[in-house]
Amino acid sequence: MLLLEEKIRKEGQVLPGNILKVGSFLNHQIDVDLLDKMGEEIHRLYGQSGVTKILTIEASGIAIACMAARHFGVPVVFAKKSQSRNIGGEVYSVKVESFTHKKVYDVVVAGEFLSAEDRVLIVDDFLANGKALLGLVDLVRQAGAQVLGAAIAIEKGFQGGGDLVRSLGVRVESLAIIEQMDGGEIRFR
Amino acid sequence: MLLLEEKIRKEGQVLPGNILKVGSFLNHQIDVDLLDKMGEEIHRLYGQSGVTKILTIEASGIAIACMAARHFGVPVVFAKKSQSRNIGGEVYSVKVESFTHKKVYDVVVAGEFLSAEDRVLIVDDFLANGKALLGLVDLVRQAGAQVLGAAIAIEKGFQGGGDLVRSLGVRVESLAIIEQMDGGEIRFR
Repeated sequence: MLLLEEKIRKEGQVLPGNILKVGSFLNHQIDVDLLDKMGEEIHRLYGQSGVTKILTIEASGIAIACMAARHFGVPVVFAKKSQSRNIGGEVYSVKVESFTHKKVYDVVVAGEFLSAEDRVLIVDDFLANGKALLGLVDLVRQAGAQVLGAAIAIEKGFQGGGDLVRSLGVRVESLAIIEQMDGGEIRFR
Repeated sequence: MLLLEEKIRKEGQVLPGNILKVGSFLNHQIDVDLLDKMGEEIHRLYGQSGVTKILTIEASGIAIACMAARHFGVPVVFAKKSQSRNIGGEVYSVKVESFTHKKVYDVVVAGEFLSAEDRVLIVDDFLANGKALLGLVDLVRQAGAQVLGAAIAIEKGFQGGGDLVRSLGVRVESLAIIEQMDGGEIRFR
């Protein structure tokens, strides 16, 4: 998606450790108008697939998931990164290691919000090593629901997670794929 | 806002410890269509105030903040609950105790995303004892920016936080105010 690639080129900052900082529009400050256009593009990609629910993970996936869901007219469910006092009852749960925070989280979804009838689109802001995405796929399958695919804002192609998940037969559509960002210069696939 | 009160009556669950569970539409599963209408109502309340930025706090404030921001055409900034490796540089920071999680968080916003020229509307999903809201007001003032007021989805009026913040001269508009929910029956102000 050209508009997103231009925004990344203009405002993204490459930090040591393969970190791409896009806090000015995606995961600290949010450019709601840009996210709405990204939501429209996600709908163009998956609008014919019969999506009944969009699944994301807190915190920074929530904005893009909501802006996409508006175009689909379906609810969002966001997986939580630790078991809250407020969840209770049956939960689907998986352990996920965060690339950014170097921590292992329990990622949970309450059983009542994913059912075997659901056709789920997974939406997230970043795809790096693929662990969060595989965790979300696992949660959907625990519910007996169908994973239609994933829509990602920014995939760090050079970290291999996207290709790994694709090789497992899951459709993955990323709005921007970074092939390389060594030395601070960003090259898209 | 009648539509929200009806939704709370229909789907809200009162748990011991003054917890109101609204995970089916607000803070686990998200009813995007309802949140869009709530955003419209927030715009009706503050649309003439010259808002330049909407500030919220992760995670469950992000959805309602984004859906409101769409109507204002301004960016959202979400405060983070601990200092991420990705923030860096100057930050505004305040300590906030969470009512739900019984934990004290460092709540931070990167300096670059709030400036003295900003006229800030604070948006959040819940207002209980007011500590999160006062923390956000503090962050805005650290930046030298102006707090125009707060728009809250659900205020637990009986916990007193909303009235406390109003008594300090901050405009607080809540779309639903729960006066009492003892014994599981919900009464609105």
